[in-house]
Amino acid sequence: MNSAPLSGLYAPSLSLLTDLYQVTMAYGYWRQGMQDREAVFHLYFRRPPFAGGYAVGAGLAYVVDFLQNLQFSEDDLHYLGSLKSAKGGVMFPPEFLTYLRELKFTCDVDAIAEGTVVFANEPLIRVQGPLLQAQLVETALLTLVNFQTLIATKASRIREAAGSDTVLEFGLRRAQGPDGGLSASRAAYLGGVDATSNVLAGQRFGIPVKGTHAHSWVMAFEQEQEAFAAYAQAFPDDSVFLVDTYDTLEGVRHAITVARELRANGHELSGIRLDSGDLAYLSREARALLNEAGFENVRIVASNDLEENLITSLKQQGAKIDTWGIGTQLVTAYDQPALGGVYKMAALRKPDDSGWDFTIKLSEQLAKTSIPGILQVRRYESDKGQPRADMLYNVAEPLPEQLTIVDPLDATRRRPVRPDATYRELLEPVFRRGQLVQQLPSLEESRARAHREVLSLDPSIRRFLNPHTYPVGLEETLNTFRTNLILEKRPQRPA
Amino acid sequence: MNSAPLSGLYAPSLSLLTDLYQVTMAYGYWRQGMQDREAVFHLYFRRPPFAGGYAVGAGLAYVVDFLQNLQFSEDDLHYLGSLKSAKGGVMFPPEFLTYLRELKFTCDVDAIAEGTVVFANEPLIRVQGPLLQAQLVETALLTLVNFQTLIATKASRIREAAGSDTVLEFGLRRAQGPDGGLSASRAAYLGGVDATSNVLAGQRFGIPVKGTHAHSWVMAFEQEQEAFAAYAQAFPDDSVFLVDTYDTLEGVRHAITVARELRANGHELSGIRLDSGDLAYLSREARALLNEAGFENVRIVASNDLEENLITSLKQQGAKIDTWGIGTQLVTAYDQPALGGVYKMAALRKPDDSGWDFTIKLSEQLAKTSIPGILQVRRYESDKGQPRADMLYNVAEPLPEQLTIVDPLDATRRRPVRPDATYRELLEPVFRRGQLVQQLPSLEESRARAHREVLSLDPSIRRFLNPHTYPVGLEETLNTFRTNLILEKRPQRPA
Repeated sequence: MNSAPLSGLYAPSLSLLTDLYQVTMAYGYWRQGMQDREAVFHLYFRRPPFAGGYAVGAGLAYVVDFLQNLQFSEDDLHYLGSLKSAKGGVMFPPEFLTYLRELKFTCDVDAIAEGTVVFANEPLIRVQGPLLQAQLVETALLTLVNFQTLIATKASRIREAAGSDTVLEFGLRRAQGPDGGLSASRAAYLGGVDATSNVLAGQRFGIPVKGTHAHSWVMAFEQEQEAFAAYAQAFPDDSVFLVDTYDTLEGVRHAITVARELRANGHELSGIRLDSGDLAYLSREARALLNEAGFENVRIVASNDLEENLITSLKQQGAKIDTWGIGTQLVTAYDQPALGGVYKMAALRKPDDSGWDFTIKLSEQLAKTSIPGILQVRRYESDKGQPRADMLYNVAEPLPEQLTIVDPLDATRRRPVRPDATYRELLEPVFRRGQLVQQLPSLEESRARAHREVLSLDPSIRRFLNPHTYPVGLEETLNTFRTNLILEKRPQRPA
Repeated sequence: MNSAPLSGLYAPSLSLLTDLYQVTMAYGYWRQGMQDREAVFHLYFRRPPFAGGYAVGAGLAYVVDFLQNLQFSEDDLHYLGSLKSAKGGVMFPPEFLTYLRELKFTCDVDAIAEGTVVFANEPLIRVQGPLLQAQLVETALLTLVNFQTLIATKASRIREAAGSDTVLEFGLRRAQGPDGGLSASRAAYLGGVDATSNVLAGQRFGIPVKGTHAHSWVMAFEQEQEAFAAYAQAFPDDSVFLVDTYDTLEGVRHAITVARELRANGHELSGIRLDSGDLAYLSREARALLNEAGFENVRIVASNDLEENLITSLKQQGAKIDTWGIGTQLVTAYDQPALGGVYKMAALRKPDDSGWDFTIKLSEQLAKTSIPGILQVRRYESDKGQPRADMLYNVAEPLPEQLTIVDPLDATRRRPVRPDATYRELLEPVFRRGQLVQQLPSLEESRARAHREVLSLDPSIRRFLNPHTYPVGLEETLNTFRTNLILEKRPQRPA
């Protein structure tokens, strides 16, 4: 097994990409005859990443792919059949493996489109269907959505800092494994970067690819200038020279010499890249040298552990940087490398099928207590399309005439909804009885949506430091129901 | 392309898992007729992760797999052929694509075995062979080794904190993508955890898998106790009840009731799990309740954003925890989610084949300046096998009679080597002329090595906070050569 871990990984079945407890619970439900009780689960996060004010939802295309291919292979079943209990017997009896062999995904799935701006506590995905199935997919859905949403959000912050400058992602070498790189390239593009260095991401997702040369290219020649000239021969119209192998400003002068040669032959140097040292100082000096030599259009690319705050700071200091190359900080979301998304059961058909039990997970902290119901997210918008407030409500219950949005952490904060307020419903049907019912948007479309939606947010919500909290509340009857359910479930200890 | 991203990812060819500049440089070398000049590259990191004193090398099995399968498919070549230059012509001419189609990996690769304790500046992998090939593999090697070494090291720290307690990894849902989870499960096991929740990792790598049930299991029943009883029916000898869905100590009491029923039927409850609240307090209370009821052997499993410092702190406060469940913090290496490994050219055959040019990458910081030569790492050990100092030397130059190890950051720190000192050479042949020449150890063997090697380190080097720096130096003639090379390459500016 150990001898070919990559070949092993890149195999078609991902049905075992799950926590063992999903399978043990599946067996438990099956054994209790509860496998087909209809249940509803919501996937959501409790805080936007990076102490920011919003997130950019991403990962749904992967989720669809996963669910469409959900089926246990014979190898999978053989492995599950080989697992032993503590006393040495089989963990799963053959009858259950037969059940798994024949299992088809028949749930309804509703989801918020990729590229949509989302906030804490809003279901990004709602899965409704047989309890066993809806539970079984938890881990994979979280893995796919947590990471991609995290990276798309990071990319949108970097885009915010960079303004209309070009942003390149080249984090593959520091990514968390091959797919950590590949998924990140996709999500980063969705979130707003312009291109990637990752060739596989270019091939698989159609993302523009960019890149020129490394320090080793320069080191492979006797002289730096000779290295630049050789590179320019290969790519006369696409050369960006890395100038800091030995001495940055010397490197700029060598680049200028070769740029003159290029121009004499009818070509223009595309850019230079700074990869170390003080980027504010060096970029200003480099810009001056380039301009003085008549190369105002040669771009200055900067890299070296950049992220949104450093970009902002360099811009404030007058750095002359046209293109930002972002690696580690983007593809690993270095300052917060995981989004804590969760997947919680919120409704379960009564055993006698007489209606729904809405379910709740308590916590010592109200913010971590789940929201019961079959939830939809309604986004109220201004006439100009600016989001004003989001309301979570239970689609299984009638809505009152007069809607009021209540802050779940402070019931005295309430917003009555004007009857003529404009809104859209964010969760859209994706699967019905296991069949895909939506043509997913292309990556380009999702990227355009992210761009549009982030820009539609008030700048106070996009601020990096202490952003304004966008109002997300519960429809009043849902909030009352939830409060009563908490009171009912929580032991009342005397003081 | 966008419609099936996962199916797209899990495909056999990973030859495009690289930065575009590796391919543009390859074309540049080919165009200059330099593609077969013999070059030597080293993969190393500059600082151990987590401000720690060491790292546990990992990822070599993936590297071997990658290199054995390195070949451009027709799809890959078609994609490269479709890339355009800024002026609209092709980026790569057909002749070069033909060259790539026929390219076979023919390098020599030497590497330090997985599970070996490694330090800053030591080559974990040395690639020697045709310049184009040795350069081309840079990105993939870094991606594979950086992440796995990072996670194996994190796991060894968690193992250090947990002592002989059981440690479970269950981070998949928060991992950086599917393979971020799968690679992490492998590296975490190598580094010292006992089992994973990740079923795919269990199947692919033979890692023991563990897991019981989630909060949703409890929520699917009218009463918590009923949920526990139902789970116990399915797994009478393997039940660990999650007790904090509603109220933790109530949950413990319900677990005890079901444990009594199990015992009456000849079974024993395996454990309970605490997933929130103050784990020191709750574990002591739970232990007291369990012991009082005659269940001294029921294990207490704890989870909730645990890592090595929190484990240490909880143990100091007398927490009664037998098994530590570690997720996010381990699989993302949350406090430092990337290892900054680099891949630097260190030697290149002279154009006339008359010998080697040893190459260097300068930096404003001496610590970031690379080390020239064809390096081997010699580890001197005490009679009891405790590492005492590592010496990097250039195998292409004769060694002097009297060896002296010099600190590259402070040439006044020198250690003469006793002539009879015991040592081993860490870099071992893995590929010769592109052929695998080593039977790789199994994952279990690498895990045993990691365990042995970490324990052989002086505790001062294993300390989490401000560890002692293990001495790694350059053989004296190498250090002198490097100093002279820096002086030669660096512009000498008047003060």
